[in-house]
Amino acid sequence: MENNNYCVIMGGGIGSRFWPFSRVSKPKQFLDFFGTGRSLLQQTFDRFSKIIPVENIFIVTNELYTDLIREQLPELNSNQILLEPQRRNTAPCIAFASYHIRAVNPDANIVVAPSDHLILRENEFLLAVKTGLDFVENNNTLLTLGIKPNRPETAYGYIQADNNDNVIFKKVKTFTEKPNVELARVFYESGEFYWNSGIFLWNVNQIIDAFHLYLPEVASIFDAGKNIFNTPDEKAFINENFSASPNISIDYGIMEKAPNVHVLCTDVGWSDLGTWGALYDISEKDENNNATLKSNAMYYGSSNNIVTLSNSEKLAVIQDLDGYIVAESNNVLLICKKEDEQRIRQYVIDAQINYGDEYV
Amino acid sequence: MENNNYCVIMGGGIGSRFWPFSRVSKPKQFLDFFGTGRSLLQQTFDRFSKIIPVENIFIVTNELYTDLIREQLPELNSNQILLEPQRRNTAPCIAFASYHIRAVNPDANIVVAPSDHLILRENEFLLAVKTGLDFVENNNTLLTLGIKPNRPETAYGYIQADNNDNVIFKKVKTFTEKPNVELARVFYESGEFYWNSGIFLWNVNQIIDAFHLYLPEVASIFDAGKNIFNTPDEKAFINENFSASPNISIDYGIMEKAPNVHVLCTDVGWSDLGTWGALYDISEKDENNNATLKSNAMYYGSSNNIVTLSNSEKLAVIQDLDGYIVAESNNVLLICKKEDEQRIRQYVIDAQINYGDEYV
Repeated sequence: MENNNYCVIMGGGIGSRFWPFSRVSKPKQFLDFFGTGRSLLQQTFDRFSKIIPVENIFIVTNELYTDLIREQLPELNSNQILLEPQRRNTAPCIAFASYHIRAVNPDANIVVAPSDHLILRENEFLLAVKTGLDFVENNNTLLTLGIKPNRPETAYGYIQADNNDNVIFKKVKTFTEKPNVELARVFYESGEFYWNSGIFLWNVNQIIDAFHLYLPEVASIFDAGKNIFNTPDEKAFINENFSASPNISIDYGIMEKAPNVHVLCTDVGWSDLGTWGALYDISEKDENNNATLKSNAMYYGSSNNIVTLSNSEKLAVIQDLDGYIVAESNNVLLICKKEDEQRIRQYVIDAQINYGDEYV
Repeated sequence: MENNNYCVIMGGGIGSRFWPFSRVSKPKQFLDFFGTGRSLLQQTFDRFSKIIPVENIFIVTNELYTDLIREQLPELNSNQILLEPQRRNTAPCIAFASYHIRAVNPDANIVVAPSDHLILRENEFLLAVKTGLDFVENNNTLLTLGIKPNRPETAYGYIQADNNDNVIFKKVKTFTEKPNVELARVFYESGEFYWNSGIFLWNVNQIIDAFHLYLPEVASIFDAGKNIFNTPDEKAFINENFSASPNISIDYGIMEKAPNVHVLCTDVGWSDLGTWGALYDISEKDENNNATLKSNAMYYGSSNNIVTLSNSEKLAVIQDLDGYIVAESNNVLLICKKEDEQRIRQYVIDAQINYGDEYV
């Protein structure tokens, strides 16, 4: 029996927030943050491959990363790697994958997920995804995975759910941007709000319908090639037309507008690992709240630091630091205050100005 | 005409004060601190080879470092590398070299110098050494190179000179240990005191006479083999007898006791590079007093730091650090306060306790 469940892993990001650990040439999703031997992308793939046939898993990424994907996921055939010639945010990325998969299987139910998130409770997560895929097969709804918040986090968007609904699948009332501290506290305490994980589930026809309704300028581009998807001509078509798509997120373009959006409420130990701070929060810490990733470390009079050297053979000796990021990778060592990590982007720019592309 | 001038470079130290930059397997003298392409040992050799025939230059070192010496100084024949089977401080080291050189040339005048010091004004230094070698050829005196102090440094020993003497060669009144701050200030302001550089000049017969007078227990060991030096049996003799020598410095054993000691007063831009602080003091600094050795660095809100990564291809990005040592070398990153650098020895011990020999 054909399996109608598909997975799309979005792996084209080039985020510089984890510099110097992440580089343009090897961004976050390709890194093994915790020294487990598997990158975040590989972990994402491993996770979904437990409930979705490997041949039904697709990666959408930038052409730049073709070799990295092949190297890290040799299980994939080349027709499972969808290459974006330009970066156009999540809506065009998802449209591309949706049109492709519809050409493969017009009954496909799809879970779409970023390649660089962390899931600590895998069994709960996989159960939720299976339940969600069943739900979207039988309901005309766009489903987003909501995470029960465990703190008033200001780094995440929130989804307000209609608590009158069914326990697991709730109608979405509103999507919100990242809140300030006061608002985050209100959200957290209300019990109505969930973190927006950026993980979506839907039937392929429902999402393509939604593109026609809410992002017709995107849909028209892909409609022009609807008989070309999953044929040898697809690549040329994409290379010719993809850049015409507006740069827009699926949240802003569709999810915040469509009326038939539900949230699948979960508590799966999720983190988007979006910042050093997020990484610090979910990392194991010593008695002085120092988190050491991958490497060895000895701390003296130091607390609240996150320290990561490029490999497990290395030792950091840290004296009299409080609240710092110490990250060494390849040819860069970064030492900066955790609370100032938003300045890292500027450091990357400065490094490029001063030294060219050697360190970025 | 035979050249009677000889040089002995002492290169057996294993100091851990520059850990992790220096390691037991590759201590300070073998390191290229400033990224010039030549280690301190090589710089010392290069310097002396400008005024002393290469074949008259000897290195005394620990057996452990034979390969490093051969690699760094391929100009030397193996009979110019004198290998100590054990570490016994400077007096036995100098006795060994003196007995060996006397067997080569009984009229030798010798300059003895550590392998790991820095000399910034080479021409002045070489002129002083030449002048000093002439002086000891014609005078029965043990000569030590004194450095005109430029600050009340507490990390150096001082030599009090008799200012009634000749301008350059002054009779030594006293050797002093490292002074406290108040005393250092008195020394500095008096104009009578010079830093004790640990560089000595003498005729080979005068120093061997001094061993007989002031360190007879050392002299007797080497006298037992006096016909064996500079023969194929020397190595076996040394391996058999060297360990019997007491562990004692030439300063304590001879220089502080002998009456015929003069100081050659110089101002040659000398540093013993004994500590990170000393290295910091003599290093070029940016407008915020950050010293960057070998590598690239960008500083933000940071001052008074000394930063060195293992090679010139690397970049350090340092935010909000004041007065730190940041040193990365091979498999260790050290971050600690400059004022607490004496604790580094303990960190090395702790690293050995925790991880064995991997990091020491």
